[in-house]
Amino acid sequence: MEGVDHLAHERNMAQFDVNDMKIVWAGSRQAFEVSDRMSRLVANDPAFRKDNRVHLTRKELFKNTLRKAAYAWKRIIELKLSEEEAGRLRFFVDEPAYTDLHWGMFVPFLKGQGTEEQLQKWLPLAYKMQIIGCYAQTELGHGSNVQGLETTATFDAKTDEFVIHSPTLTSSKWWPGGLGKVSTHAVVFARLITNGRDYGVHGFMVQIRSLDDHSALPGITIGDIGVKFGNGAYNTMDNGVMRFDHVRIPRNQLLMRFSQVTREGKYVQSDVPRQLVYGTMVYVRKTIVVDASNALSRAVCIATRYSAVRRQFGAQDGVETQVINYKTQQSRLFPLLASAYAFRFVGEWLQWLYTDVTERLAANDFSTLPEAHACTAGLKSITTAATADGIEECRKLCGGHGYLCSSGLPELFAVYVPACTYEGDNVVLLLQVARFLVKTVSQLVSGKKPVGTTAYMGRLQHLMESTCKVQKAEDWLNPSIVLEVFEARSARMSVECAKKLGEFTNQEEGFQELSPSLVEAAVAHCQLIIVSKFIEKLQGDIPGKGVKEQLQKLCSIYALYTLHKHMGDFLSTSTITPKQASLADDQLRSLYSQVRPNAIALVDAFNYTDHYLGSILGRYDGNVYPNLYDEAWKDPMNESAVPDGYHEYIKPLLKQQLRNSRL
Amino acid sequence: MEGVDHLAHERNMAQFDVNDMKIVWAGSRQAFEVSDRMSRLVANDPAFRKDNRVHLTRKELFKNTLRKAAYAWKRIIELKLSEEEAGRLRFFVDEPAYTDLHWGMFVPFLKGQGTEEQLQKWLPLAYKMQIIGCYAQTELGHGSNVQGLETTATFDAKTDEFVIHSPTLTSSKWWPGGLGKVSTHAVVFARLITNGRDYGVHGFMVQIRSLDDHSALPGITIGDIGVKFGNGAYNTMDNGVMRFDHVRIPRNQLLMRFSQVTREGKYVQSDVPRQLVYGTMVYVRKTIVVDASNALSRAVCIATRYSAVRRQFGAQDGVETQVINYKTQQSRLFPLLASAYAFRFVGEWLQWLYTDVTERLAANDFSTLPEAHACTAGLKSITTAATADGIEECRKLCGGHGYLCSSGLPELFAVYVPACTYEGDNVVLLLQVARFLVKTVSQLVSGKKPVGTTAYMGRLQHLMESTCKVQKAEDWLNPSIVLEVFEARSARMSVECAKKLGEFTNQEEGFQELSPSLVEAAVAHCQLIIVSKFIEKLQGDIPGKGVKEQLQKLCSIYALYTLHKHMGDFLSTSTITPKQASLADDQLRSLYSQVRPNAIALVDAFNYTDHYLGSILGRYDGNVYPNLYDEAWKDPMNESAVPDGYHEYIKPLLKQQLRNSRL
Repeated sequence: MEGVDHLAHERNMAQFDVNDMKIVWAGSRQAFEVSDRMSRLVANDPAFRKDNRVHLTRKELFKNTLRKAAYAWKRIIELKLSEEEAGRLRFFVDEPAYTDLHWGMFVPFLKGQGTEEQLQKWLPLAYKMQIIGCYAQTELGHGSNVQGLETTATFDAKTDEFVIHSPTLTSSKWWPGGLGKVSTHAVVFARLITNGRDYGVHGFMVQIRSLDDHSALPGITIGDIGVKFGNGAYNTMDNGVMRFDHVRIPRNQLLMRFSQVTREGKYVQSDVPRQLVYGTMVYVRKTIVVDASNALSRAVCIATRYSAVRRQFGAQDGVETQVINYKTQQSRLFPLLASAYAFRFVGEWLQWLYTDVTERLAANDFSTLPEAHACTAGLKSITTAATADGIEECRKLCGGHGYLCSSGLPELFAVYVPACTYEGDNVVLLLQVARFLVKTVSQLVSGKKPVGTTAYMGRLQHLMESTCKVQKAEDWLNPSIVLEVFEARSARMSVECAKKLGEFTNQEEGFQELSPSLVEAAVAHCQLIIVSKFIEKLQGDIPGKGVKEQLQKLCSIYALYTLHKHMGDFLSTSTITPKQASLADDQLRSLYSQVRPNAIALVDAFNYTDHYLGSILGRYDGNVYPNLYDEAWKDPMNESAVPDGYHEYIKPLLKQQLRNSRL
Repeated sequence: MEGVDHLAHERNMAQFDVNDMKIVWAGSRQAFEVSDRMSRLVANDPAFRKDNRVHLTRKELFKNTLRKAAYAWKRIIELKLSEEEAGRLRFFVDEPAYTDLHWGMFVPFLKGQGTEEQLQKWLPLAYKMQIIGCYAQTELGHGSNVQGLETTATFDAKTDEFVIHSPTLTSSKWWPGGLGKVSTHAVVFARLITNGRDYGVHGFMVQIRSLDDHSALPGITIGDIGVKFGNGAYNTMDNGVMRFDHVRIPRNQLLMRFSQVTREGKYVQSDVPRQLVYGTMVYVRKTIVVDASNALSRAVCIATRYSAVRRQFGAQDGVETQVINYKTQQSRLFPLLASAYAFRFVGEWLQWLYTDVTERLAANDFSTLPEAHACTAGLKSITTAATADGIEECRKLCGGHGYLCSSGLPELFAVYVPACTYEGDNVVLLLQVARFLVKTVSQLVSGKKPVGTTAYMGRLQHLMESTCKVQKAEDWLNPSIVLEVFEARSARMSVECAKKLGEFTNQEEGFQELSPSLVEAAVAHCQLIIVSKFIEKLQGDIPGKGVKEQLQKLCSIYALYTLHKHMGDFLSTSTITPKQASLADDQLRSLYSQVRPNAIALVDAFNYTDHYLGSILGRYDGNVYPNLYDEAWKDPMNESAVPDGYHEYIKPLLKQQLRNSRL
């Protein structure tokens, strides 16, 4: 970041202390310091260079990722990094790798499903990476519907073993990251069959490769499933395919915390409550929401800085206008900036929820679990969907140059979009939320008190009748008015769905028929959660000059933009009037103008290094054009002036000599 | 397409004649036959194989494209193909190449801007490809604002030459396709300066490479601008950068149809009306709208077929439900299917408009030009935006497997999205439409009669007061009711914008401030055009069993889905009531059920070969899983069981020997 700062003028305009905002974004001073230190450590080490990724073949790319993963692990050991520090270091290396699955799925799942004895055996090996694990759940023919998996694990009492088998082509394990080329072990999900009875899907610890020469163990066929979206992106990952031909494992490699099979083949449930599984699910989805704010903020940072650099039209004194000054640009960019902050804070709240759920589970209190489950499922769905769309919108906001890989945006999009599908397809998850909402409404009659994020349903009577109090544009800045409007919209949509469902004799058929409306009701509920958690955050103490004021503006932008985008909902439920909708739009435009001078500082607060951003358009110093220009010449296509193929395919064409050419 | 047809049952369900629908889709029997013949010619020729694209390096990929382009040209000559046939052949080769720019931009632009004498000199060379041309307009610092280009062409009376020069880094030509490695000539846009006066941007014919050895001519620096979005996608194209260092060209290489510079350096406008330029613009944008229907229909074809193959949840008798039977899937997929048809027909109508405009221009009638210009700009914008989003939605509708390049969808998205930016950024274009709409409204007072697609504004009084007559769901199938609702919504939004603009003393400031609302008014107007042209199409004679009935359903789906998506507009302008909105949703769900049995046949009607689709998920025979499985093993990553890098980066890690490793 040395040299002239072309964005210095922008930074000087800011009306708040950017260093204080960095702490707020990071979550705490300690979290900021760890992130800051780790991001610089990675950025300053040439071994972690990533700007050459798009020029490598898949095999070169993959080998390079293996190198980085090993090197990162070496540094983690050498520097004696804590678990938190190691996690941040891997995050800033910014390259999907088998280690993501080892640390993010294999180890947590083992901890969640293994018995004490199993943990003692496997965890020390996993912690030292003496074994590398992956999570082998989805199959070629089976994704969202886990209960439909076909792989079998049949108990053979004669040998005291489970026989793992892939009975059909569609039962081939398909997609698991780290499986294709690296993992030595896998948690394999298979139907547990004993004494001829199918007990459904369970997790088994299976060694899949030799620890001596890395070859697949007998009876196991493994490979990579091929090229995925994008130039680099997830192609650094060995998503794999695996088939089993009657592979035998010891009985004690069933992960047995919740259920066991005795020596005689009897299936026994343990007394550990099965609901504990949901704890892991809340944890994983919380991580996904935080990741959404990471990915979206990164795209927004690039687009915002470039929008201040790029000038187009409106020349005055020969200098064109910065595109960030156009209201159309602001109306697309600033809601995404606000969303990035909104997702950050709801992610922070989910961290609290996870702790709360864990403590309750430890005390055998399962009362909040369905609500926590619905809420995390819904937030996973809407934050990942908005982030995927938002990254592409940021790319478009960068005009033509956003299409170059050197903008960083194409790869960010390609690497991010699977989040909409993995860990629960977004639409499937919203239907789960909708099911919960309809149930909540129907139980109100019987006096059951809704909890947590559905507590507002307890005031249903009031919300069905309330009228929005907005009379002038500034009234839309009042958090309690905004909150009630979002509550009323959500409640009315849920009630309307419940009412329509009541007209069906077969509830399941009704649910199926009305599912598009149910999805919309679920979205309304989840948007309310995000708005309410942003408002809650602002009710607390937030130190730093001007910091809270900026966040209040962003909160209003998130709420009013959402209101504008879903105006049909608010008007059709008569929650607001057309006049009030128009006032909200007026207020929104005014907020854009207020945020404008703070825009660059608000993205600086993410504290991303140029290495992490990986974007010429998003450079901290704004020195875009010379660097775009220099970057072009590094392309292998420019190694020679006359391209490969000129003599065979261009010259004969120009010289009208194709007739005799072999092509 | 040999072997078992796994989708035969789906095809047998269709309630219309798919062969007749193929004719309707193609536009005419003749057009169908040409397309059919050319698509098979390409599909059956192994030289046009494209399934290996994602495994090639950029240089290999590019060289392969050069080969295909030369081979295609050879075949075109050998088979004595007509211009139409040659165009279709290139279309089905389905790989962006320099020939796209040569035939699609260089030749048409030359024809539009050259004098008779210039055409006689250059056109025969271009037609035989003895020269290869590109279109060098945009610069590193200048895209949408053509008037801001910096390259200069200064007339030197001493030598009777223009001196082409790049005065700044940002004036470097940047993006032109075919420029980086292939073109021998370029139409270069530069500021014409003579006698010290700047006459603005003009086109010049400039030879850029030697016809002997292909080296760049003296004073010219040319290269490729680097890797773009996607694995294959536009990386087959040599988008280029070019700088001029005082390059001299003869005076007569200014393209002189509209203006000339005399031997003495005097700038003279010809008497050819400059409005003729707009004719070319209408032509290019018409092509883009037709391309949108091509790209969207292709994605929809893949997603629809795979949705009939894929089964998930809802097991009955052990067989899960086809995902196409889920209402959530239908509510996302069928509107895109309807949009593909809608864009097809509006593209067909634009072809008529182009002919009409051309005839009028020939007769010096410029009266319809502003309206035609606004209408094509707007349609370009909304069809490309909907198509880009639609392709990604189709990818998501294919679940996890849509993320594999073998699904064809990632590349289709990556290759399509630039359409939202090139030939006018979509938002900039909508602002042009909005400007025209506001002007149309303001001129109503003075009695100026609106023409063409804005004719409905002539009934403004009625449209401001009319109330929607829908009383039951089926009323929404009435085309005249639907049409009037779309007209009223659009008129009211334009009037509202005009009214708000009137409150500003400075009109330009007002336009700037209200631009987000103006964009929405423009979208409303363009959606009305699409709905009205679909309805018009259905008023004509459409032969074939059940064909018109299916198209009527698709037309209603397009209209009612659009109404649902923009419900805020319809409600806030009081065009419809919440009750009517709810009835529209009911009707929409019913239409989804009616279209369901016809879905596969409706995408078969596009008549795409498996080669053109390039998607395992979209295979005609529906035999997805075995082919996905086989494809995986062809990946270079699977050449060896143990990956490159195992000995350096995995084994030492597993064996705890990283400390001594060089990484």
